[in-house]
Amino acid sequence: MKTFLDDDFLLRNDVSKKLYHDYAKNLPIIDYHCHIDAKEIAENKKFKNITELWLGGDHYKWRFMRAAGVDEKYITGDATDKEKFIKWIEVLSMAIGNPLYHWSHLELKKYFGFNGYVTKDNAEDLWELCNKTIASDDFCARNIINISNVSVLCTTDDPADSLEYHKAIAKDKSFKCFVLPSFRPDNAILIEKPGYIDYISRLSDVCQVKINSLDTLKDALTLRVNYFKENGCVVSDHGLTDIPFNPVSESEANTIFKKRLNGITLSLDEVEKFQTYMLLFLHSKYKEVGLVSQLHYGCKRDNNESMFEKIGPNTGFDAISSVTSGNKLADFLNLLNNNDSLGKMIVYSLNPNDNDIIDTVIACFQDGKSANKLQHGSAWWFNDNKPGMEKHLESLANNSNLSGFVGMLTDSRSFVSYTRHDYFRRILCNYLGTLVVNNEFPEDYEILGEIVKKISYKNAALYFGFQSA
Amino acid sequence: MKTFLDDDFLLRNDVSKKLYHDYAKNLPIIDYHCHIDAKEIAENKKFKNITELWLGGDHYKWRFMRAAGVDEKYITGDATDKEKFIKWIEVLSMAIGNPLYHWSHLELKKYFGFNGYVTKDNAEDLWELCNKTIASDDFCARNIINISNVSVLCTTDDPADSLEYHKAIAKDKSFKCFVLPSFRPDNAILIEKPGYIDYISRLSDVCQVKINSLDTLKDALTLRVNYFKENGCVVSDHGLTDIPFNPVSESEANTIFKKRLNGITLSLDEVEKFQTYMLLFLHSKYKEVGLVSQLHYGCKRDNNESMFEKIGPNTGFDAISSVTSGNKLADFLNLLNNNDSLGKMIVYSLNPNDNDIIDTVIACFQDGKSANKLQHGSAWWFNDNKPGMEKHLESLANNSNLSGFVGMLTDSRSFVSYTRHDYFRRILCNYLGTLVVNNEFPEDYEILGEIVKKISYKNAALYFGFQSA
Amino acid sequence: MKTFLDDDFLLRNDVSKKLYHDYAKNLPIIDYHCHIDAKEIAENKKFKNITELWLGGDHYKWRFMRAAGVDEKYITGDATDKEKFIKWIEVLSMAIGNPLYHWSHLELKKYFGFNGYVTKDNAEDLWELCNKTIASDDFCARNIINISNVSVLCTTDDPADSLEYHKAIAKDKSFKCFVLPSFRPDNAILIEKPGYIDYISRLSDVCQVKINSLDTLKDALTLRVNYFKENGCVVSDHGLTDIPFNPVSESEANTIFKKRLNGITLSLDEVEKFQTYMLLFLHSKYKEVGLVSQLHYGCKRDNNESMFEKIGPNTGFDAISSVTSGNKLADFLNLLNNNDSLGKMIVYSLNPNDNDIIDTVIACFQDGKSANKLQHGSAWWFNDNKPGMEKHLESLANNSNLSGFVGMLTDSRSFVSYTRHDYFRRILCNYLGTLVVNNEFPEDYEILGEIVKKISYKNAALYFGFQSA
Repeated sequence: MKTFLDDDFLLRNDVSKKLYHDYAKNLPIIDYHCHIDAKEIAENKKFKNITELWLGGDHYKWRFMRAAGVDEKYITGDATDKEKFIKWIEVLSMAIGNPLYHWSHLELKKYFGFNGYVTKDNAEDLWELCNKTIASDDFCARNIINISNVSVLCTTDDPADSLEYHKAIAKDKSFKCFVLPSFRPDNAILIEKPGYIDYISRLSDVCQVKINSLDTLKDALTLRVNYFKENGCVVSDHGLTDIPFNPVSESEANTIFKKRLNGITLSLDEVEKFQTYMLLFLHSKYKEVGLVSQLHYGCKRDNNESMFEKIGPNTGFDAISSVTSGNKLADFLNLLNNNDSLGKMIVYSLNPNDNDIIDTVIACFQDGKSANKLQHGSAWWFNDNKPGMEKHLESLANNSNLSGFVGMLTDSRSFVSYTRHDYFRRILCNYLGTLVVNNEFPEDYEILGEIVKKISYKNAALYFGFQSA
Repeated sequence: MKTFLDDDFLLRNDVSKKLYHDYAKNLPIIDYHCHIDAKEIAENKKFKNITELWLGGDHYKWRFMRAAGVDEKYITGDATDKEKFIKWIEVLSMAIGNPLYHWSHLELKKYFGFNGYVTKDNAEDLWELCNKTIASDDFCARNIINISNVSVLCTTDDPADSLEYHKAIAKDKSFKCFVLPSFRPDNAILIEKPGYIDYISRLSDVCQVKINSLDTLKDALTLRVNYFKENGCVVSDHGLTDIPFNPVSESEANTIFKKRLNGITLSLDEVEKFQTYMLLFLHSKYKEVGLVSQLHYGCKRDNNESMFEKIGPNTGFDAISSVTSGNKLADFLNLLNNNDSLGKMIVYSLNPNDNDIIDTVIACFQDGKSANKLQHGSAWWFNDNKPGMEKHLESLANNSNLSGFVGMLTDSRSFVSYTRHDYFRRILCNYLGTLVVNNEFPEDYEILGEIVKKISYKNAALYFGFQSA
Repeated sequence: MKTFLDDDFLLRNDVSKKLYHDYAKNLPIIDYHCHIDAKEIAENKKFKNITELWLGGDHYKWRFMRAAGVDEKYITGDATDKEKFIKWIEVLSMAIGNPLYHWSHLELKKYFGFNGYVTKDNAEDLWELCNKTIASDDFCARNIINISNVSVLCTTDDPADSLEYHKAIAKDKSFKCFVLPSFRPDNAILIEKPGYIDYISRLSDVCQVKINSLDTLKDALTLRVNYFKENGCVVSDHGLTDIPFNPVSESEANTIFKKRLNGITLSLDEVEKFQTYMLLFLHSKYKEVGLVSQLHYGCKRDNNESMFEKIGPNTGFDAISSVTSGNKLADFLNLLNNNDSLGKMIVYSLNPNDNDIIDTVIACFQDGKSANKLQHGSAWWFNDNKPGMEKHLESLANNSNLSGFVGMLTDSRSFVSYTRHDYFRRILCNYLGTLVVNNEFPEDYEILGEIVKKISYKNAALYFGFQSA
């Protein structure tokens, strides 16, 4: 029997091993979608201890601890950092079949040199080991990025963000990784959210545009799209519960917007109309300036009101939405296409039942402009694990052109999540190698190696325009 | 090639074999959800022949026979018992890939010592073999339970049930298995069903409460919850087409209830409102007295009206509902949580597309009160088979804490279905062992063995409070 | 490592190999659903070159080329046939995991004797090789059908079709394959389509019935059902976006039909009512004359309006519908059953999430009239590939009687798609053999061989009444 997490981790046959070791392993990382805070890179953040690094904001781990019956005191409460870490290791040691088991061990191996596996008995030793590494001078944000071989890193940013930290990072020519902002205007279009009026006021200030009508809102967002573009932005992003599709006239959208500014509660229908209008408008801008669009949908957020009130959003209380948006997605893409506003786009749904649907919908809008102009984004969030990735790859290969896939991203707030690219590459190489071993594709490394390199790196470099990267 | 159904049945590698044989095989069974009739245990039922035992009320087998083109005469009609058995064996012999093939052979092996496999040629011999065993004195309800190593058995009972048979069984201290009632008040809340008024009248009589308003209905059900609890009940159950979620005031629910009592047909909207109200009320009671709640949903029942009129419900004419209730489930759980009425709960959907959705929804309501306080129930009914269980285990492991899973139940009306626990344990051990062999988890039997024992027995003992069991 | 596409292609163990080679391989093909043009058989069509044969109307290949970034010029545009072929081979060479890779290589091997695999380097040679074969006298429609071992071939035809080509083919007794029409009245019931009034006018002419009311429409369709039946038709077909279910009176359906004839736009509700009425009516006719019914649903068609205007329907712009019709399907089948209008039927959904739902719904309407009277049709279109077929087989086996399955069809417009039956048989034998090797079914070739022969050929011969075939 093999050792857990050896060099051939997840590579179950010789073809898969060869593809990974000879073609995938050493390629740089283009992390075109993550939630790292640019400020922490700019300031070259150091960490207090492994609890801050690992458990500070990681709602994946928090959810698992809650499921395992750990008291909230040891999760987001007032237990000591060491107590929290010990509790985490205890439940992690039993986490068979959960991606956290693999992610955590890949991180312990790469960043802390730990080659074993966690048990309730070695939690104390791990606390010491990790903290010793973390205390060393080398263990800071930029160095972690460097040793992770990241060539491009796209953060996720609000239109009102000044991008000051991105500018600061860009000035430092000694830091070789490109850190680019992404344009995520959720706050401007999720009109039903509390705090919307305050946000519009803040956006007004940032843009020096008095936003009191749809026209002025569009003006402000246009200014910010251009500003982001000037600062290196190549990609936008939208986080949507479901795909909205209810087209209305500019005049009706304006009426809805003004109602909201006047504090009137909108109907669900009005909310959908406004969102449809704004998405169409913004995509015309993205097309104009050449931003790739990302749509993330299928997430029902903040389901536990009691915990939301206590600790806010993004703390582990989100779920897969059971609404299916495939037909609306098709109609939305068609309208974009009719308006000549459909550029490159990456579509992600949180619902794995949408895999085949997304693949067949976006296939209706491909054209000769680039390989996989519309992309089915890498398995997202609750699907970002071995079975989820395998289902995504199979659906993509079956229904579309796998070799044009733009590949992996971390979607993470953490600096030590770059091992997920390694995880993905292993799963990809194992998927491809298994097809070869099962005699479903010839053992031709010229073709296979090129496919691996494209999906691991080259496609993303081309798709986002990082040829120089 | 191995012999079909040998000791290593379904165990495809050495780790899986070791986990099953060393840790799972000999543990007692806690069957926390079945449909066995307590009267048959109390009276220590004997069986006329294998047809009564096997085909008497088994709508799984009936469906298969109908699909295979067998005339209803040989299913629920007036053919002789022997003719029915012969027809069944003929079609069973071709049932490759169907769980009935495995279930039937596991039962033939354990209870009748038959080590071969059925063919059209050995049907006569089997008829003799089984009936000879059935005729022996030992082959009676209690002894079957004993040799099946069942320590706890929870039946499914209407609130109006007197529980006289449960009391009778409890009095016999020589019978070591605990036979406990479960509280299933479908008849009280499925307000749109024909016969509802008669049922309410019957419940009135049993409770000695004149039920003529929502208040009196709630009083009656409260009395029965308490009565069940006093008689050992630890778990409730609801069978729902889909999850209702349309909260209303007590006054509106009362108006709807009175309309129904006055014979007025309710709208779908009113039905959903009443059900929502009643579910919220009952869960507050379950929380209060400490009953685990079970929700079974996603079933569209009695689809064939013509057969329903001829032979009634639960005869093989139910299907998976295509309505997806995930979002309503999230909102329902949130409201329970807001009302401090969310205790332990097990959620089952008949739709396998709900697997990941359920896992991510219930994860939003876990807390430190117990491991997996909210459970994603074992693969149910049309999913209660090898592929269905494997998908359930994978979804559960991926999205939650598999090691806290409360495990298998039979959901069966039959005394010889206990082999399904064995079937489940083999599939579980094969799932876990395969992860180890694929190098996805370390080969550490201290951890693995504990996980197997927890899921096979210990979790259920703890979750339902059978520490003494 | 084995050679790609050798004799044991897709057969991963010895049992699977034996089942395929000894029982499946040499059986004739009953292609009970395809889109071949009877005219081309009648005229014994010859082909200009491999581009006409392969890329002429194959929207599967077109979609793949678009996804891979090929300009429309090389797909449906004015590039030369050779240029189109070269572009196709270039992208095909990278199509790992896509069914087109297997389909194309199976066709190159069987019809052109090519035993290698395509690369960008051998595209020119392939162009020569294929065209040389195509130029030979033997390479004509009827001979391709003969060497493909097709015994029955059911085309797909509009009720207004004269069936002149079917008659012409039937007259030639030297051609041994039965070429039968299928009755597909989509044009008569998809009342919302542009051109509906023109179609009704054409149908009037063909039938010599002035269609100006529901009664006369029903008269006309009855005439055509009978006419098709007289010309050998055994099966009907409906292509539906989703299953309609909104029953109305004859009088209301008549009102809706007349509104449409008068050029009034119908509501979605009216469209569904009319379709429900017509489906119920037509199925009473199918039952009466003994046609098997086919329902194809779950497809959202013509999503890209811009391309639809340029190149019309069936050009690669269709997708899986995200609407789930399972509950309506159950209600529709129940109503048919109540009306004594439910005969043999094959149900296909484009949405793979419907697999288990369909299996459990149709199980509610099986009876003793024939094995699998209601069939879950073979994995359709976007599911017509290895993973899709495996999921379909598993769902069917789990929920129903796999051994009664009526098996594969091509659903193709091409004369060289008959290798898809071979593809299916390999996947079927591998599925069955794997169950045996995994010790889930005994290695009894009397039973296994019979199951293989039934699904590959005998069930279809019996189900459609081709005993003489």
